[in-house]
Amino acid sequence: MRIDGIPASPGYAEGPLFDVDQPPASYKAKAGATGEKAALKGAIGKAVGRLAALVETADGDAAGILEFHIAMLEDDALSGPAFASIGSGQPADVAWRAALDSEIAGYQASDQDYFRARAADLRDIRDQVLRALSEDSEAAAPLGAILYGEDIAPTRFLETDWSHGGGIALRAGSTASHVAMLARSRGVPMVVGLGAPAGPLTGAALLDAERGGIIFSPSPAEIEAFRQSASFFADRQGAARTFLTEPAVTRAGTAVRVQVNIAYPSDVDGIDIATCDGVGLMRTEFLFGKTLPDEETQYHAYRKVLEWAGDKPVTIRTVDAGGDKPVPGFTVEETNPFLGLRGIRLSLARRDIFRVQIRALLRAAIHGNLKVMFPMVATHDEYSQAAALFAEEQATLAAQGVAHKLPPLGIMVEVPSVALVPEGFADVAFFSIGSNDLTQYVMAAARDNAAVAHLNSVRHPAVLRLIAAVAAFGREKGIPVSLCGDAGGDPAAIPALLEAGLRDLSVAPAQLAMAKAAIADIPV
Amino acid sequence: MRIDGIPASPGYAEGPLFDVDQPPASYKAKAGATGEKAALKGAIGKAVGRLAALVETADGDAAGILEFHIAMLEDDALSGPAFASIGSGQPADVAWRAALDSEIAGYQASDQDYFRARAADLRDIRDQVLRALSEDSEAAAPLGAILYGEDIAPTRFLETDWSHGGGIALRAGSTASHVAMLARSRGVPMVVGLGAPAGPLTGAALLDAERGGIIFSPSPAEIEAFRQSASFFADRQGAARTFLTEPAVTRAGTAVRVQVNIAYPSDVDGIDIATCDGVGLMRTEFLFGKTLPDEETQYHAYRKVLEWAGDKPVTIRTVDAGGDKPVPGFTVEETNPFLGLRGIRLSLARRDIFRVQIRALLRAAIHGNLKVMFPMVATHDEYSQAAALFAEEQATLAAQGVAHKLPPLGIMVEVPSVALVPEGFADVAFFSIGSNDLTQYVMAAARDNAAVAHLNSVRHPAVLRLIAAVAAFGREKGIPVSLCGDAGGDPAAIPALLEAGLRDLSVAPAQLAMAKAAIADIPV
Repeated sequence: MRIDGIPASPGYAEGPLFDVDQPPASYKAKAGATGEKAALKGAIGKAVGRLAALVETADGDAAGILEFHIAMLEDDALSGPAFASIGSGQPADVAWRAALDSEIAGYQASDQDYFRARAADLRDIRDQVLRALSEDSEAAAPLGAILYGEDIAPTRFLETDWSHGGGIALRAGSTASHVAMLARSRGVPMVVGLGAPAGPLTGAALLDAERGGIIFSPSPAEIEAFRQSASFFADRQGAARTFLTEPAVTRAGTAVRVQVNIAYPSDVDGIDIATCDGVGLMRTEFLFGKTLPDEETQYHAYRKVLEWAGDKPVTIRTVDAGGDKPVPGFTVEETNPFLGLRGIRLSLARRDIFRVQIRALLRAAIHGNLKVMFPMVATHDEYSQAAALFAEEQATLAAQGVAHKLPPLGIMVEVPSVALVPEGFADVAFFSIGSNDLTQYVMAAARDNAAVAHLNSVRHPAVLRLIAAVAAFGREKGIPVSLCGDAGGDPAAIPALLEAGLRDLSVAPAQLAMAKAAIADIPV
Repeated sequence: MRIDGIPASPGYAEGPLFDVDQPPASYKAKAGATGEKAALKGAIGKAVGRLAALVETADGDAAGILEFHIAMLEDDALSGPAFASIGSGQPADVAWRAALDSEIAGYQASDQDYFRARAADLRDIRDQVLRALSEDSEAAAPLGAILYGEDIAPTRFLETDWSHGGGIALRAGSTASHVAMLARSRGVPMVVGLGAPAGPLTGAALLDAERGGIIFSPSPAEIEAFRQSASFFADRQGAARTFLTEPAVTRAGTAVRVQVNIAYPSDVDGIDIATCDGVGLMRTEFLFGKTLPDEETQYHAYRKVLEWAGDKPVTIRTVDAGGDKPVPGFTVEETNPFLGLRGIRLSLARRDIFRVQIRALLRAAIHGNLKVMFPMVATHDEYSQAAALFAEEQATLAAQGVAHKLPPLGIMVEVPSVALVPEGFADVAFFSIGSNDLTQYVMAAARDNAAVAHLNSVRHPAVLRLIAAVAAFGREKGIPVSLCGDAGGDPAAIPALLEAGLRDLSVAPAQLAMAKAAIADIPV
C-alpha cells in the first residue's frame, strides 16, 4: 500500500518501521508541593544538561536549534504556570504537561506555517522533561529504521545514528520544521503529511522521499522498482561529489558560477570556500528572533562571513521579514502575508529598524567583497528610497569618522512587475532572481500550499520567459544577473535555467555537488 | 484637522457630524425567568417585524441583506444560548448581549476580511433586539449629516434619508461590509478606517470620499478647496448621465463596447438593457451561501438574467469561491487564500459541486445568448479539464432528452502565467481580463491590504504591458478580449486601457455613465 506525502528531504530508505510516538513512562508523585516542585526543577535541569551535552557535538544549524530549546526551558514564562499549578496541589507531571499543552495548542492553532512548525519544538521540550521526571529513557531505533509517527522531536533526530541509512515518515509534520532543516543538511530522507493510515503499521517499508511517499508491506515488484530508483539516486549523488572541488562547466565548456545560499553565519563552518564562487544569498532573518538585533550583533555576523569568503563576493540580503517569516514586534498579521507588507516594503515602513541594519552593513563592508540586495522590490521608487538611506547613513558614519564602505546595491527579482519591465531598473548594480517567490506570483500558487503544488512550477513557460527576459536585459546592459531560488540547485530545472541565459546560480550548500554535476551534463 | 482613511464609496459630503455609537437605552427587568423569556421572544419578534417591513421597500441588494438578518434572528443557534442563560437567572438584556457578543468576538477575530465584515451585521442584530427590549428607538440623524462612529449598522443606513446628501465616516469599518456595498450602489460617500481621533468631535465636517479622508473644524480655505473638488466631481457625474443612453464612442469615433458586471440576478432590475452591451461578468458566488445551491435554483437565477438581456450576451463566470470569498463546506482555510485553492482550482477539486453548476448552465443556455468563463485559470490543462466536464454533462443531458445548449467557453485572464503566454490558449472562445487579481499578482500586493495599496496599481507599466499583449494576441487570432475588473469603470484608468488595445470593458452598473463619459473624452 502506497501513501503519498510531501518530500521534506530527498532520498530513499528501506528498513523496518519504528514508532516514535511512544509516550513517556508514568511518574510516581512525591509527597507534597515542595517535593513536586523540586522534582520538576530537577527534571528541567536534567533536560537542559542533556541538551547542553548534545550542543557540544552539534554543528551550526543543530547547535542553534538546541540552544533555542535550552533558552525556552530556562524561560520562566514557560515553566511559571506549571510551578503555580503544583502550588495549588497538582503533581509535577500533570502540571508540566498542562502548561506545555496549552502553549502547544496556541502554536498549533496559528495560521502561520512558521509558528505551527514550532509546536514540534515545544512537544520535544515537554517530553524531555516528562522523561527526566519518570527517569525514563527513549528506546533507540534499530539502525537503518524508518522513524514513523505523528511528528518527530529534534532531539530524537540528533540522537539517532544515521550512519547506516534510515529515514523519517510523518503523518503530520512540516517541511518548515527544525527536523526537516536538519534532515536536508544531513541528507536523511524525510516525507511529511502522510495522513493517518488505517490501523497500526509494523514491518518493513520503502520510503521514497524524492517524489514523496511510503510503501507499506511492499510486493517484490515494488521492492525491485524502488531499489532501482534508489540506486539511480545514489549514483547521481556519488558522481556529484567528484565535481565538488572543480569549477562548474557544461559539456561544451561554458563556465557557470555556482555560489551558495546561507541562512546562518555558522553555515559556512562546514563549507570549503574553494568549492564555491562565493555567497549568492546570505539571509539575515536569523538575526530577527525574539528581540530586534543591535548594530554590533549584526556587524559581527556579517564580518564573520565576509572574512571567511576572502575576496569572493558575499551578497547579503536586507531583512526579508513578513510573508512566511513573522518577527514579533516587527511584522504585522495579514490575511495574505505573501502579498503583504514584507521585505523592503516593511523595511521602508520601519526605517528605525532598517537604519540599524544599514549601518552594520556599511561597517562590515570593509572586511571583504560585500554586495547588498533588497528583497521584494516591486517599483523603482522602493529601490531609490533604500539607496538613499544607505547614502544618508554613509554620510553619518563619515561625519563620525567610523570606518565603512558603500557596497554595490542590487535587487531581488521576485515580484513579476520587475521582471516584466526590467528596463525600469537600469541603474541597479545587479539582479538576483528569487525563483521561489517569482514562481508563486506568476502562477498565483503559494509555495507552501500542497493543494496548489501542481501549479507551482519554475519550469512553466511563463516563469522561464520572465527569467530569460531579465537575463537578456542584464547581458545587454552589462548588469550581472544571478538566481538564488531552490530551482538553482534542482538538477531537473538547471538545464532550463541555463537555456534561459543564466550563467550564475546560488544553491543550498547541500546541493552544491549535485548542481555542478547537473551542469557538467548539459551539452551547450 | 484632516484624518486620512480608505474610500469605500466615492463622493463628497459637507454637513454636521452625527454620532451613531449611542448605546440602546437601559432595560427594566421583568419578574422571573418566564417573564424574561417572553420579553426576549417579543423583542426578537419586533425586530424581525421591523426588518420585514423594510424589505417591502428595499431593492435587490438591500432586500438580500435584510433577509440575511431575518434568517439570523430566526436561527435558534443564535438565540438558544441567550434563552439558556435566562433559565439560569440572567435578565433578558444581559443574556442576549452576552450571547451575541460571544458570536461577534468570533467573527471579529477571523483573519478573513469577509467574516470580519459580518461582525457589523451581528452588532446590528444585537442592538435591534436590545432597542426592542427597552422600547427605545434610535434618534434619526439630521438631513445631510455625516454619520460618524466606530462602525454603522445596515438598518441605520437603510432607514436614513439620503435624498439631501450626507455621508458616512467610520473609525473602523470595512470596504467589504454590507453598508459599503449599499453606499456604492446608492452613491452615498463613505470612508472607513479613519482610526480614533483624540476627544469627542462635533460640529461641521468635510468628508472627502474620493481620496479618503475627513476634515474636522475646517478653515475657510479648506472649505473653499473642498467645495471646488466636490463641484468638479458633481459636474463629472452630471455630464456622465447624458452619455448613459448612447453607445460609447471616443472623440475620434472609435466604438467601445461597455457591458456591466453583476453579482445578483436582482441587480438587473435597476438597469435598462438599452444602456449597455450586455453582461460582461455575472458572478455566481451569491448562490453559494450557507448551503450549496441545487441545480434548479441556479438554473432559474441564470435564466432570469438571460431573458432580461434578450439577444445581448451574458457572460457567466463559474463559481469563484476561495480567496476572499469563503464558502462553508466548500472552500478551505489557507495561510494565503489569494494564492490558494480558489476559482477553477477548487471547482476541479470538487467536481460533484461543479457538475451541478455545469448542468444548470447548459440548461439555461437555451434562454438567451450565454457565454461561460472559468476564473483563476493558470494552465491550459485546467481549461481542458473544465471543458471536458461540460462535454460530459452535455452528453448526459442529451441522453436524458433534456433541452440544453453548449455555450462558448472562455477564461478569465488574471493569473500572470496566462497573460505571459497567451499563445498557449489559442483554442478558447474568449478572454476576459480580471484586472483586480492580475494587478495584485503582478505587483505581489494584496488588493484588500491598505499597507500595500500604494503598490497595487493597474496603471503600472508591467500590468499594462500584459494587458496589451493579451489584446494584441486576441486581435491576431480573432479571439475576443474584454476586461471586467474595477479598472474598466475607473475614468483615470480607461485611457490607458484603450491605449493598451482594449475595446470591450465591463463595469459596475453605477459606473456605466461615468465610463461612457470618460470614453467620449478620449481623442483616439
